[in-house]
Amino acid sequence: MLFGQGDKIVLIGDSITDCDRGRPIGEAGNGGAGHGYVELVDAFLQSGYPERKLRVVNVGSSGHTVRDLQARWQTDVIDQKPDWLTIMIGTNDVWRQFDRPMLPELHVRIDEYERTLEELVVQTKPLVKGIVLMTPFFVEACREDRMRMEMDRYGAVVRAIAERNGTLFVDTQTTFDRVLEHIYSAQLTWDRVHPNKAGHMILARALLDAVEFDYSKRA
Amino acid sequence: MLFGQGDKIVLIGDSITDCDRGRPIGEAGNGGAGHGYVELVDAFLQSGYPERKLRVVNVGSSGHTVRDLQARWQTDVIDQKPDWLTIMIGTNDVWRQFDRPMLPELHVRIDEYERTLEELVVQTKPLVKGIVLMTPFFVEACREDRMRMEMDRYGAVVRAIAERNGTLFVDTQTTFDRVLEHIYSAQLTWDRVHPNKAGHMILARALLDAVEFDYSKRA
Amino acid sequence: MLFGQGDKIVLIGDSITDCDRGRPIGEAGNGGAGHGYVELVDAFLQSGYPERKLRVVNVGSSGHTVRDLQARWQTDVIDQKPDWLTIMIGTNDVWRQFDRPMLPELHVRIDEYERTLEELVVQTKPLVKGIVLMTPFFVEACREDRMRMEMDRYGAVVRAIAERNGTLFVDTQTTFDRVLEHIYSAQLTWDRVHPNKAGHMILARALLDAVEFDYSKRA
Amino acid sequence: MLFGQGDKIVLIGDSITDCDRGRPIGEAGNGGAGHGYVELVDAFLQSGYPERKLRVVNVGSSGHTVRDLQARWQTDVIDQKPDWLTIMIGTNDVWRQFDRPMLPELHVRIDEYERTLEELVVQTKPLVKGIVLMTPFFVEACREDRMRMEMDRYGAVVRAIAERNGTLFVDTQTTFDRVLEHIYSAQLTWDRVHPNKAGHMILARALLDAVEFDYSKRA
Amino acid sequence: MLFGQGDKIVLIGDSITDCDRGRPIGEAGNGGAGHGYVELVDAFLQSGYPERKLRVVNVGSSGHTVRDLQARWQTDVIDQKPDWLTIMIGTNDVWRQFDRPMLPELHVRIDEYERTLEELVVQTKPLVKGIVLMTPFFVEACREDRMRMEMDRYGAVVRAIAERNGTLFVDTQTTFDRVLEHIYSAQLTWDRVHPNKAGHMILARALLDAVEFDYSKRA
Amino acid sequence: MLFGQGDKIVLIGDSITDCDRGRPIGEAGNGGAGHGYVELVDAFLQSGYPERKLRVVNVGSSGHTVRDLQARWQTDVIDQKPDWLTIMIGTNDVWRQFDRPMLPELHVRIDEYERTLEELVVQTKPLVKGIVLMTPFFVEACREDRMRMEMDRYGAVVRAIAERNGTLFVDTQTTFDRVLEHIYSAQLTWDRVHPNKAGHMILARALLDAVEFDYSKRA
Amino acid sequence: MLFGQGDKIVLIGDSITDCDRGRPIGEAGNGGAGHGYVELVDAFLQSGYPERKLRVVNVGSSGHTVRDLQARWQTDVIDQKPDWLTIMIGTNDVWRQFDRPMLPELHVRIDEYERTLEELVVQTKPLVKGIVLMTPFFVEACREDRMRMEMDRYGAVVRAIAERNGTLFVDTQTTFDRVLEHIYSAQLTWDRVHPNKAGHMILARALLDAVEFDYSKRA
Amino acid sequence: MLFGQGDKIVLIGDSITDCDRGRPIGEAGNGGAGHGYVELVDAFLQSGYPERKLRVVNVGSSGHTVRDLQARWQTDVIDQKPDWLTIMIGTNDVWRQFDRPMLPELHVRIDEYERTLEELVVQTKPLVKGIVLMTPFFVEACREDRMRMEMDRYGAVVRAIAERNGTLFVDTQTTFDRVLEHIYSAQLTWDRVHPNKAGHMILARALLDAVEFDYSKRA
Repeated sequence: MLFGQGDKIVLIGDSITDCDRGRPIGEAGNGGAGHGYVELVDAFLQSGYPERKLRVVNVGSSGHTVRDLQARWQTDVIDQKPDWLTIMIGTNDVWRQFDRPMLPELHVRIDEYERTLEELVVQTKPLVKGIVLMTPFFVEACREDRMRMEMDRYGAVVRAIAERNGTLFVDTQTTFDRVLEHIYSAQLTWDRVHPNKAGHMILARALLDAVEFDYSKRA
Repeated sequence: MLFGQGDKIVLIGDSITDCDRGRPIGEAGNGGAGHGYVELVDAFLQSGYPERKLRVVNVGSSGHTVRDLQARWQTDVIDQKPDWLTIMIGTNDVWRQFDRPMLPELHVRIDEYERTLEELVVQTKPLVKGIVLMTPFFVEACREDRMRMEMDRYGAVVRAIAERNGTLFVDTQTTFDRVLEHIYSAQLTWDRVHPNKAGHMILARALLDAVEFDYSKRA
Repeated sequence: MLFGQGDKIVLIGDSITDCDRGRPIGEAGNGGAGHGYVELVDAFLQSGYPERKLRVVNVGSSGHTVRDLQARWQTDVIDQKPDWLTIMIGTNDVWRQFDRPMLPELHVRIDEYERTLEELVVQTKPLVKGIVLMTPFFVEACREDRMRMEMDRYGAVVRAIAERNGTLFVDTQTTFDRVLEHIYSAQLTWDRVHPNKAGHMILARALLDAVEFDYSKRA
Repeated sequence: MLFGQGDKIVLIGDSITDCDRGRPIGEAGNGGAGHGYVELVDAFLQSGYPERKLRVVNVGSSGHTVRDLQARWQTDVIDQKPDWLTIMIGTNDVWRQFDRPMLPELHVRIDEYERTLEELVVQTKPLVKGIVLMTPFFVEACREDRMRMEMDRYGAVVRAIAERNGTLFVDTQTTFDRVLEHIYSAQLTWDRVHPNKAGHMILARALLDAVEFDYSKRA
Repeated sequence: MLFGQGDKIVLIGDSITDCDRGRPIGEAGNGGAGHGYVELVDAFLQSGYPERKLRVVNVGSSGHTVRDLQARWQTDVIDQKPDWLTIMIGTNDVWRQFDRPMLPELHVRIDEYERTLEELVVQTKPLVKGIVLMTPFFVEACREDRMRMEMDRYGAVVRAIAERNGTLFVDTQTTFDRVLEHIYSAQLTWDRVHPNKAGHMILARALLDAVEFDYSKRA
Repeated sequence: MLFGQGDKIVLIGDSITDCDRGRPIGEAGNGGAGHGYVELVDAFLQSGYPERKLRVVNVGSSGHTVRDLQARWQTDVIDQKPDWLTIMIGTNDVWRQFDRPMLPELHVRIDEYERTLEELVVQTKPLVKGIVLMTPFFVEACREDRMRMEMDRYGAVVRAIAERNGTLFVDTQTTFDRVLEHIYSAQLTWDRVHPNKAGHMILARALLDAVEFDYSKRA
Repeated sequence: MLFGQGDKIVLIGDSITDCDRGRPIGEAGNGGAGHGYVELVDAFLQSGYPERKLRVVNVGSSGHTVRDLQARWQTDVIDQKPDWLTIMIGTNDVWRQFDRPMLPELHVRIDEYERTLEELVVQTKPLVKGIVLMTPFFVEACREDRMRMEMDRYGAVVRAIAERNGTLFVDTQTTFDRVLEHIYSAQLTWDRVHPNKAGHMILARALLDAVEFDYSKRA
Repeated sequence: MLFGQGDKIVLIGDSITDCDRGRPIGEAGNGGAGHGYVELVDAFLQSGYPERKLRVVNVGSSGHTVRDLQARWQTDVIDQKPDWLTIMIGTNDVWRQFDRPMLPELHVRIDEYERTLEELVVQTKPLVKGIVLMTPFFVEACREDRMRMEMDRYGAVVRAIAERNGTLFVDTQTTFDRVLEHIYSAQLTWDRVHPNKAGHMILARALLDAVEFDYSKRA
């Protein structure tokens, strides 16, 4: 497993990461992990590798776009001095273009998205042991759905940034698509955006796969 | 306008009708219309035809299927002695098959749906001046979506029952589809099922069209 | 319909406009329209003209007089950069003289009312595509009622300002009077000031008439 | 003062009497007098005639008509074994005809009103030391107001019953009218029905006048 | 009655005056009179002399001593520009010496009490039409009770200040004593300090007597 | 100490015993002791004699008189099968005669008090190892206070019953009187009836003295 | 994995199972799984084997012993018609002997525990595809701790019953012990009984191991 | 008893001292003692020595370590001008090393603990009549428990500081150990840290022993 002794892992994102985490900083060790995939990741790590004393910190914030992340990057990422950083952002960047079309100041178009996300990655990479970039996703099986198509374009941007910068990468959309071959999206989320606990388990395990978590290990 | 002097209009359905109506009976005249299309219909009627003293009664109940309607038909419809009755049911009959596939007792298959709904219409038609049958709908533009396809089948059942029994008919799905040519579904509903106020206005006006409401009339 | 592609419509007023709108600015697109005529107007516009992406903003504030409007005009109107502006004010300017006679600092006499309202109109007209001036109203059928008489004088001031400045004009009092020929005021409001949903529908449709809303259009 | 040593005074009516009294019986001595004229009457009696140990009981119920009073007369009046009884009823009997015209089952027409009220008086008079009949009222200065006119007719019925049965009588409408010569109704009530504390003081003192309360007495 | 057309009456004191009044200033005309004697006084004035448009303002504050009054005298009395001022203070000055003997900083001894109260009276008298000084009281019949004896000494101070400065004076203790000849203190207050509604009626009427309120007047 | 291995001690009384105990039965071992002297007694017993596994049960009920105790004696005392029983009742029997003089059905006069209490003692004594009778009390130093005098008469009744029946006896009034020689009653209770924690400590220790608790014992 | 297509899995136990599950039956598919290991097990199953449509039902109840399970076995187990049943009970059977020693009726001694649990297993085994017996546990590293020793004895009973009846078996105590070699118990539970999320993950994975869940499977 | 006439006793510590005390300063005389041993100590003092007018002040704060105490020493101890000071700190200093091992900034190692605590004692001793140093404790019978062993080391530090500085000393751990010979820890605390009322009684009496409280004294 990539996370080493005493490593501090910071996870940033939007409401899918947030899930009512602790404020101002969501220390998992103080009950602040929230109720989503971050809590599950922490539970896997603490139960599977208790001796490593890993420190998991949730700084997801509901409603945030990459523009909002940039605005709080210093305090919520840099100042936290993470060893590892995971980023899953983009849902709201896309969603607001579809559910709030009359409010253009809320829209983060793909060029701004790419430019901003890459700046954050470039700035932060030298400061940490590793970064995990996770695509945003839309739990919608219909590939011709307009919002799904746009989300896919943002996901492709994340992949490109990961490749250009040599970070770890999680394609959450593909992970969900694999499940959607078997079941209807309503089994995982009521609005095609916010996962239920099974959906968060999918996210947690996709992330753990990327950092080579060993499921066969028993403490 | 079809509703005449002193007519009592009872509207039955699921959560889309309910919208936190008054209990046990949602008398619009006592502030019990709820916050959805029923309230809008009542506001149109009271402001446009105040002298007719129309009585609007909301007996929608969240989560209900046609099976649940049958169980309370005597108290909530027959005993109310309506002059007019509107029925919009079927969303949950279909939805539960997709979001709760492991709970088969919640599923109302299409044959039970058709049989039950027609029984209610046949039983009630002689007792009222008129019935308006409204299709269930799914605010999903992708026609190949599995739940959309199923909802369309249930909608076709409603149309057939309306034709066989000579009731008024509102094709809510088509009404929404016309709007979806211009905008994305997220502008009207967050889960493709429950409309926002604009979505309820669409429903209210589709229903008013069916009963020949005159928009040019000013009290 | 007068509102064009992408227009932003700001509606200012007192509690009849406010109806628990969002703070600090009541963006209808973010669920901040409140529960009165502004919400109905937005629902008509979004359902009837969804492709125009109209932006409706409610900045009504309960208890306000024209004096209060002036104090927040820069932030709540000018800074919002509206394309269209509607103003319905005066109820509290009059009411406080009748229900709080011992608190003279709350009274806005007719000369201050006229001077202030006209200043706001003159200042704002060059900045917008159009202004709709709506009279205040009192849902009281008795023309000799002292408060009704005073409200009529304030309404006449609004008409005069609309004519002098070439704005659109809505005579809400006359609209209500027409309904009062058929029904008693208690059917529309419990205190002769705050309308129920039917009363708000009357206001919404009077406003939509002024901007030439087409009821026959279906999206 | 007419109330004698240890007398029990029961006051029945609608919301104007109720004012959030104690349940099931509003014992003033246990803090159940409510916050309206009954509480004021009790405060006058306990402070002015403390040695008489008068027992004041509020059995007003919000929304009630004379028909509702009849339904609970046995438990709420007869079973209480009052020495004195005051009755102020009729507001809702009239009001529902004006604000809920489409709900005829809520209307108590004047003939039913007269018949029922007189039955209650005739039945109860032999059981008590005295009855005080108070008219319903409408704090509306305009005598041509349709609801005011109807309320006046009901008030005349109360006066006639009082005269026919030899009970004490309080013309609350005339008492309010005298005040309305000086001030506008909004100073006393926000809906012309429910008085503020000054309005309740008017009621309390009108009732105390009828039972010959001596204001000059100091305990 | 001493209060004249348009007079503003400010009442200051401790919890017995406060009774959950409005903040920051308890305007009776805006529903801020609280639920004690101030509300009763206002109800008497508005119902008995509605045409005088008297403005009643409650600035009592729970727990306050004369030392606390001095600290807020400028904002809560002088800045209010009263025509009339009533002061009832001293309960807590005495009480804290008995229930919190270990907290000496809460005790206001009689010399500080006298000096401070007189300073406030001397400073304010030229600014107003009249001042009413009310003694503090203790609803305790036993004259040898230690706290009663101390309260009597403070009451004597108030009388002396009233005489030296020519203000109106209300001996609340004597008023209560007169009632205690007939009843036990528990009928008026549960802790011998805070009156129930009958106790507040005693206070209100004692104050109204001092300003020559005419009970026989009917508006 | 009189309580032996595994003994169950039931304490019955009014609000002074109750103090928000658990319902239906206040098992101290389950956190149901309430916040008064019962909790203190339990804390003394569990910390001083932990090895005895004493079971303390609070069945005090706010507002109760000896008449109320009799009504629930079977379920709340007999059915509990206590080894020891303590009874402190009478406060409300007396108090209601003074604070609710107009509600005679709430008064328990001294003859009924004596007869009822003695019946309960006679009936229960054979079933238990011991009974502790505690007098009611009134924290009022003035011996001429009317309610104090009456409470003393009731206390004398308790003493007489204890002597006639050979039970243990606690004269709580005398215990409080000893403290009142040093301090004013307000230091112990705000209404002369309900003790603060220091007052409950006085009660707890008086009771422990009666059962020969050994303060020098350390577990 | 042992659970097959459409299987219904019922999990019964105490507060460690309950975790605020839905009432009366905790359907995981309706959001009633609670927040403990049951929710995790369901999330693993739904995300790993979505196509099997497994139905997970939580009928744990806080505070219950095996005696309480027996009392509700018919409604909560038999009537649910499970395909699989898991049982983890015994914590409270032991705990009450240590924290409530004075309340013997709450203690379930080991012979009653063994007899009752085996009866339930014998009765139910023929009705289901499989039973998983899980030991109770105490997250206490000190083997000489009195409560730990007793819990170990109860755990041995569970193992014996599993062997005699040929059920699946999970030794939760050993699983926790393995983790306690690395960390202190306070990292997993604040009271050595109720696990945090990491502790529940340990339980969930121990249970999943027993039913041969395949971690390498991706839907 | 060591506390003399009018002495002010300040008690500082962590959650065991705090117990929801008043803020910002927990004046026992104002109901701010909290619900733990401080409240019991105050109740003993006020009931046993009421004439001394002792002032008890609780400045415990939940979660605090000696490092936190140092940060607020000036305002919460020095500025309070105590005559006597008691200190019980160290639980969290130790606990965080065991339950939050991944959050090193929360750990107060034994050298920092000793240095800081001694600085506070040295600085404060000249300013007060006496200091009582109380050890932290862990209600864990197993001496080999890792956290118990560490807590014992911190307790030894407290003893050493007490001896070096000539303060009073309470060995709370030994006091609890004596009880644990008879009962299991769960009878006194649910998490081995926070005592129930019996546990607080043990603490209160240990502290009172140190200041030579006379249990035989009756006020």
